[in-house]
Amino acid sequence: MSKQRIYINDVGVRDGFQIEKNVIPTETKIALIDQLSKTGLAKIEVTSFVHPKFVPNMADAETVLAEIERVPGVVYSALVPNLKGMERAVKCKIDEINVFMSASETHNRANVNRSCDESFTDFAVMVKMAHDAGMKINGTISTSFGCPFEGHVAPERVLGFAGRYAALNFDGLTFADTTGMANPRQVRELMSEAVKQFGTKVREITLHFHNTRSMGLANVVAGIEAGVLSYDASIGGLGGCPFAPGATGNICTEDLVNMLEDMGYNTGVSLDALLAQAVKIPMIVGHEVPGQVMKAGKTMHLHPVPEKLYTK
Amino acid sequence: MSKQRIYINDVGVRDGFQIEKNVIPTETKIALIDQLSKTGLAKIEVTSFVHPKFVPNMADAETVLAEIERVPGVVYSALVPNLKGMERAVKCKIDEINVFMSASETHNRANVNRSCDESFTDFAVMVKMAHDAGMKINGTISTSFGCPFEGHVAPERVLGFAGRYAALNFDGLTFADTTGMANPRQVRELMSEAVKQFGTKVREITLHFHNTRSMGLANVVAGIEAGVLSYDASIGGLGGCPFAPGATGNICTEDLVNMLEDMGYNTGVSLDALLAQAVKIPMIVGHEVPGQVMKAGKTMHLHPVPEKLYTK
Repeated sequence: MSKQRIYINDVGVRDGFQIEKNVIPTETKIALIDQLSKTGLAKIEVTSFVHPKFVPNMADAETVLAEIERVPGVVYSALVPNLKGMERAVKCKIDEINVFMSASETHNRANVNRSCDESFTDFAVMVKMAHDAGMKINGTISTSFGCPFEGHVAPERVLGFAGRYAALNFDGLTFADTTGMANPRQVRELMSEAVKQFGTKVREITLHFHNTRSMGLANVVAGIEAGVLSYDASIGGLGGCPFAPGATGNICTEDLVNMLEDMGYNTGVSLDALLAQAVKIPMIVGHEVPGQVMKAGKTMHLHPVPEKLYTK
Repeated sequence: MSKQRIYINDVGVRDGFQIEKNVIPTETKIALIDQLSKTGLAKIEVTSFVHPKFVPNMADAETVLAEIERVPGVVYSALVPNLKGMERAVKCKIDEINVFMSASETHNRANVNRSCDESFTDFAVMVKMAHDAGMKINGTISTSFGCPFEGHVAPERVLGFAGRYAALNFDGLTFADTTGMANPRQVRELMSEAVKQFGTKVREITLHFHNTRSMGLANVVAGIEAGVLSYDASIGGLGGCPFAPGATGNICTEDLVNMLEDMGYNTGVSLDALLAQAVKIPMIVGHEVPGQVMKAGKTMHLHPVPEKLYTK
């Protein structure tokens, strides 16, 4: 029996670098993306077309997209917050556009200064712009598993927004646990329903977890059990939580790959190649990162037998 | 429908403190145990009767056991490595003795300088000593999910040792993932078999996970799915891996409780009371600890709506 394929999308260069206080040089990003392209990742979210005033580290979006070396088979995506960003994005070479809104009204207003309904008004135009430019378009629902301001978010509300994305002819849907509030039981329940409702209506359903409260990989296992095969993660576990200094960020790509390969899934990713890049991340960002496998070694990284056992 | 109860055993004072380089004052341990006793934990492993030469931080085992305030309903246990330790232990007031051997021959020799079979020769005597003293006795199988020297450990071998413990009239069995090599699929498979074979032969089956490679809480979910209801964890995520500087230790008690309560299980533990102790741990050990919920807040710790949303 061939192994079940699980698709990994590294978002570290975007979701991770965007919150770093230090400026990450454009050439450093390009070099990292080019190395990540060779690891077997299914997708890399390489940048964001946000206004540089809000996210200075993404001001070089066009340059990054112009200068990376594309590896056939890897999907290169970019995050686009609004029509202005879309106008910039369609002039670049991108395989997939990722737009977003939040299931929680308060979070959507805090994040993009619009109501949820207002966010949807531009999406139809953006779908047309993406498809006319030969790009796929993915719709993300942030705070799908809880809102840091409102708390509980009703599953029906999340599925409702997914339905609106699907009706607008989006190619993919991402359910995002923006601040690490999801638990495995909730993931299994919501995603079983999402897969049932939208599994045949969109080409790809992706889960985006943060490891803010240590539940990240447990939520992946629950997502797989519900039938979701695509996962966002960030190299080194880059990312963070704007509300919690010291909290961990996105689930860590190499820790995710290590677990999935141990479980008998095929990620298509070379863990060794990924680890060779992960160990560079602390130097790039100037601080320690949460990735564990880079510190502990792969599961089957064995250790020499203690000297006392062979010297007597 | 009443919620499924999950039983939490905090091992931080033993498994965590034993690897700390700084001396932890006896009164600090007693104060922490006394506070943990009031949180609703099912069990606390308070010390170890190892030789002080090997683990200086456990030299005060007798004093700790003499001076803690016992809360009715909490099981107080102690780790015992050998007959010498057992002779010390039975003179103390302990509810449960925890003995151990490793499923891997090399790890057992490295850890206790005996073969696996040699470890079992004393266990019958130790069961009698414990039961004569009115204490329960639990048998731990270290490296149940992999050995840092040998790698793969055959499930049949692990179940074989569990059978030998059960045949010796042990009250409980602990399957320990000593260096964080277990993955959720493996846990579900091995523990389904263990519960089938030993669920009615012993009073309690416990899982002991380390979060060395970020899989700790995912493994707990897999263990529960296999029918295991008792889990070791350490306050603050204390503990570590002797082979990997910087690697995380045991799964973190408060992160575990946060996840299980979110999932609708009843741990019997007050997460607030636990967090009030967890935040003290970095000062006690003199370094940061891996616990995430103490940094990010409980899942439903909500944040004030940003000012811009109510000032216009």
